[in-house]
Amino acid sequence: MLNVLEQRKFPASRVKALASARSAGKTLSFGNTDIVVEEMTNDSFNDVDIALFSAGGSISEAYRDIVVGAGAVMIDNSSAFRQDEGVPLVVPEVNAHTIQQHSGVIANPNCSTIIMNVPMWPLHRAKGLKRVLVSTYQAASGAGRPAMEELEATTRAWAEGRPVEPKAFPYPLVFNLFSHNAPIGPDGYNQEEAKMTQETRKIFGVPGLAVAATCVRVPVLRAHCEAISAEFEEPLPPAEARRLLEAAPGVRVLDDPAANRSPQPVDASGVDDIFVGRLREDTSLPGGRGLMLFVAGDQLLKGAALNAVQIAELVAGGGPLVQSAE
Amino acid sequence: MLNVLEQRKFPASRVKALASARSAGKTLSFGNTDIVVEEMTNDSFNDVDIALFSAGGSISEAYRDIVVGAGAVMIDNSSAFRQDEGVPLVVPEVNAHTIQQHSGVIANPNCSTIIMNVPMWPLHRAKGLKRVLVSTYQAASGAGRPAMEELEATTRAWAEGRPVEPKAFPYPLVFNLFSHNAPIGPDGYNQEEAKMTQETRKIFGVPGLAVAATCVRVPVLRAHCEAISAEFEEPLPPAEARRLLEAAPGVRVLDDPAANRSPQPVDASGVDDIFVGRLREDTSLPGGRGLMLFVAGDQLLKGAALNAVQIAELVAGGGPLVQSAE
Repeated sequence: MLNVLEQRKFPASRVKALASARSAGKTLSFGNTDIVVEEMTNDSFNDVDIALFSAGGSISEAYRDIVVGAGAVMIDNSSAFRQDEGVPLVVPEVNAHTIQQHSGVIANPNCSTIIMNVPMWPLHRAKGLKRVLVSTYQAASGAGRPAMEELEATTRAWAEGRPVEPKAFPYPLVFNLFSHNAPIGPDGYNQEEAKMTQETRKIFGVPGLAVAATCVRVPVLRAHCEAISAEFEEPLPPAEARRLLEAAPGVRVLDDPAANRSPQPVDASGVDDIFVGRLREDTSLPGGRGLMLFVAGDQLLKGAALNAVQIAELVAGGGPLVQSAE
Repeated sequence: MLNVLEQRKFPASRVKALASARSAGKTLSFGNTDIVVEEMTNDSFNDVDIALFSAGGSISEAYRDIVVGAGAVMIDNSSAFRQDEGVPLVVPEVNAHTIQQHSGVIANPNCSTIIMNVPMWPLHRAKGLKRVLVSTYQAASGAGRPAMEELEATTRAWAEGRPVEPKAFPYPLVFNLFSHNAPIGPDGYNQEEAKMTQETRKIFGVPGLAVAATCVRVPVLRAHCEAISAEFEEPLPPAEARRLLEAAPGVRVLDDPAANRSPQPVDASGVDDIFVGRLREDTSLPGGRGLMLFVAGDQLLKGAALNAVQIAELVAGGGPLVQSAE
């Protein structure tokens, strides 16, 4: 988050880092300066305009009233408020206009959802999305830094012939993969899959949009990939989809069938844009109304920190912060 | 192949191993005995009943007439003859009866196709398959032993801080994944994806079956996974699908939503059965006619050698070899 703020030269007169007492006093680098982490207390927000939260849903819930009461806008990376009325759920390339409706809190969507929504939005606008089926190939980073470190450590352990014992993940990830370990609901979908359905509906403003996901963790460090099959109201030839995507903000088309080159995690890692390729007609649908595509996006950037900072830029650029009457 | 023949106690009076002159003289273990590899020549098949071929399409094409002329049955793992009229394309759990129609050659299907077809067949029989969308998570083994060795070697190189340079694969596979590198046709599908469509149609005996695949290589050694969404003519509740799959040959249901336990490559590696889990309604389809599932199967066993040996067992068990009149 600090890296993204610094690289994008976020117009802040001051940036402070808040954490639990355990982390207070640690030093973080921010551009050419250092920031000493402060303990987050009820008084931390009195001089704050924008508070970027990424410490889990329970922390966000505990501090919501304090942040809003201090007159700051909370931009929350957790899932705590994403489905709440009056809380915009924002992918700036899609629904920046909804930010004005906030009443103190703006939610940052789920990473897999953002990475799918950025390229699907221009296609939806042009041809009317009816149904999306998506299979994900999700990196370790989505489970946090300990999970990334565990993937590296267990890979080293394998190379050195030592036993591989996962702790951050419930199962080994070296030369393996497993269904996303978010709890599974009564309909059989895990919470990650349910988020992709519910959050896409809210972000696109299409309450009944048909979306079904299969979310899978793969041994990749920080970029998610997704195989998407989309059905539209009207025919969408792949060449037209390509033109729409080439003109879309936040999207980079990487699709060279002759060279068999399409988006990979290594392409997307450390890059802001969502990569899109493998554009082809879904030949299992009649009438040219189906499109298949494969996307890759950095889970830590557009999937998390970058999208949150882009929301903050919209808030900062919107003049005096206007809260809705609600 | 030799391991499978030995473990299943294939009823052969003699097993011989044929290869190019380069490999002739090498010793392979077969149960408690050793087999010295012989150079394959035009005279190699005079005393042979069943010839298992797994040396690529051009070798199979070059030897087809020689094998058949010698009165042997060729069981071919390559894709050379799979779509030929008069060549049965066989998954024994699905279409064993078509073996009688052979005229000297029986084709062993593509690995991803076999792994999908075994669990989909009992569901198709019960409810009539209309459309299948599948995203694969394919192991290195599908690209041969050098690819498996490369995945291990490049993983060790990463752990030791050495540069990772792929040769068997066009791109790095450590902490990465990429679209299957089979050539891409004019419709945008690579050959692996096209095989999943065309071979499933032939094996199921449904010429127009709607199948669209996205085939992806992931850093896994020898078991393929597949996320499948299937649409049926009639409603198929997940509980009924589970009962059908539990009774199906070659299938093992591993589906415990409460424990979040479903098929993984580590489950399927070295195991004959295809594992099936994540059984749930495809809620993006109306009327309960959609089913989502996730499968894992050993690419080297059921995806290749085991299926070929099962075909050989059918041939051997069928009494005198009956060739069709064609």
